[in-house]
Amino acid sequence: MAEKVTLVMFSGELDKALAAFNIAIGAASSGMDVSIFFTFWGLNIIKKNEGALRSKGIMRKMLNIMNRGGTRRLPLSKFHMFGLGRWMMSKLMKDSKIPTLESMMEMAKGLGVKFMACTTSMGIMGISKEAFIPGVDSYCGVATYLSEGRDSKINLFI
Amino acid sequence: MAEKVTLVMFSGELDKALAAFNIAIGAASSGMDVSIFFTFWGLNIIKKNEGALRSKGIMRKMLNIMNRGGTRRLPLSKFHMFGLGRWMMSKLMKDSKIPTLESMMEMAKGLGVKFMACTTSMGIMGISKEAFIPGVDSYCGVATYLSEGRDSKINLFI
Amino acid sequence: MAEKVTLVMFSGELDKALAAFNIAIGAASSGMDVSIFFTFWGLNIIKKNEGALRSKGIMRKMLNIMNRGGTRRLPLSKFHMFGLGRWMMSKLMKDSKIPTLESMMEMAKGLGVKFMACTTSMGIMGISKEAFIPGVDSYCGVATYLSEGRDSKINLFI
Repeated sequence: MAEKVTLVMFSGELDKALAAFNIAIGAASSGMDVSIFFTFWGLNIIKKNEGALRSKGIMRKMLNIMNRGGTRRLPLSKFHMFGLGRWMMSKLMKDSKIPTLESMMEMAKGLGVKFMACTTSMGIMGISKEAFIPGVDSYCGVATYLSEGRDSKINLFI
Repeated sequence: MAEKVTLVMFSGELDKALAAFNIAIGAASSGMDVSIFFTFWGLNIIKKNEGALRSKGIMRKMLNIMNRGGTRRLPLSKFHMFGLGRWMMSKLMKDSKIPTLESMMEMAKGLGVKFMACTTSMGIMGISKEAFIPGVDSYCGVATYLSEGRDSKINLFI
Repeated sequence: MAEKVTLVMFSGELDKALAAFNIAIGAASSGMDVSIFFTFWGLNIIKKNEGALRSKGIMRKMLNIMNRGGTRRLPLSKFHMFGLGRWMMSKLMKDSKIPTLESMMEMAKGLGVKFMACTTSMGIMGISKEAFIPGVDSYCGVATYLSEGRDSKINLFI
């Protein structure tokens, strides 16, 4: 049986997402069995880039406007500078022939990396399944994470 | 012997504390043996909400005013907006019937989750034992964390 | 064979670096085999304090001015306040007889802690080997991290 890697993706920042997918792709391409558990701000990474998020109640509507998410909107954790830092980072990555986050996510899916979305966070934030990209494999809670994480050789909170 | 979970709680933000206690409660209720090692800003989570923090020296007094802590004062890591984000998050959690952080901490204690406070950080920041809630089980250093962490099935830095 | 500890040092903040080196020194002095994998902002921790960083292209030059790094320039993750928080923290640490980050790094090297620098991040950010302190043991990618991390008793993302 393949060794397991489980990542808890709590942060919704571009730089941390890149680090996570770099690890995920490296592990999956060396034959490890990788799961990423997206929770809280991390859910922004797997939101569609297009369309508005529909949610009930004025506060969830407001939150989903501020916290729109989608790979093309993720900020940097440092030097974000209203988007300038993000733009610079994308240029530098392209220049270094590093794939974009979107390509990395596709690559990860191709290698069998499992995407799991935390239903507790979805409930609090009023995010429905329609908000996410098609690649999400399952919608689950902390029990599922724990059953994956406890048998993992690598288990990180990012 | 029960499987172990050890969390290093470094951050003092509400959202990260909620994630940590969600994992801790999930693990403890499925029979795992959970310890949370509170260090640096994470010590704010186990400070009492009431009273002033007493500490010696002008700089530690200043730090303990700015960095007062207590579950009701923890900021969000994103969208804090001078407290508005925190207030919204509390409303959304209540609305989704998610318990407050305080209730989750009580639940965790009820399930046997151990709270450990890092004495090195307490020393630097000038925080005395009186600042903390009664539920703290032990005051210890990195050696104790390492001896718990090295045998844990799940070990996260949050 | 000694038990392994592998830390992914992603953040470039003083407080997180102190936490990481506290764990690294504790583990190494109890006979564990410790590696720190510096990536992204974490590379700032192992940059020399002296001299300018040379890099090609206007954007990398700009990034390396903003993101100069070196132990004496690392910000705090909270209460940085344009350097005041950092200065206060240094005073408080001195007062508590806690060694500086620089001394901790030397101590770690003396105990055999391995410093690994992520070549992917170096490429994106345009950082050359000359930017780093002499103590860096190897320059490597995610595969090396994974082969260390998968056999580690403690493996944290900081």
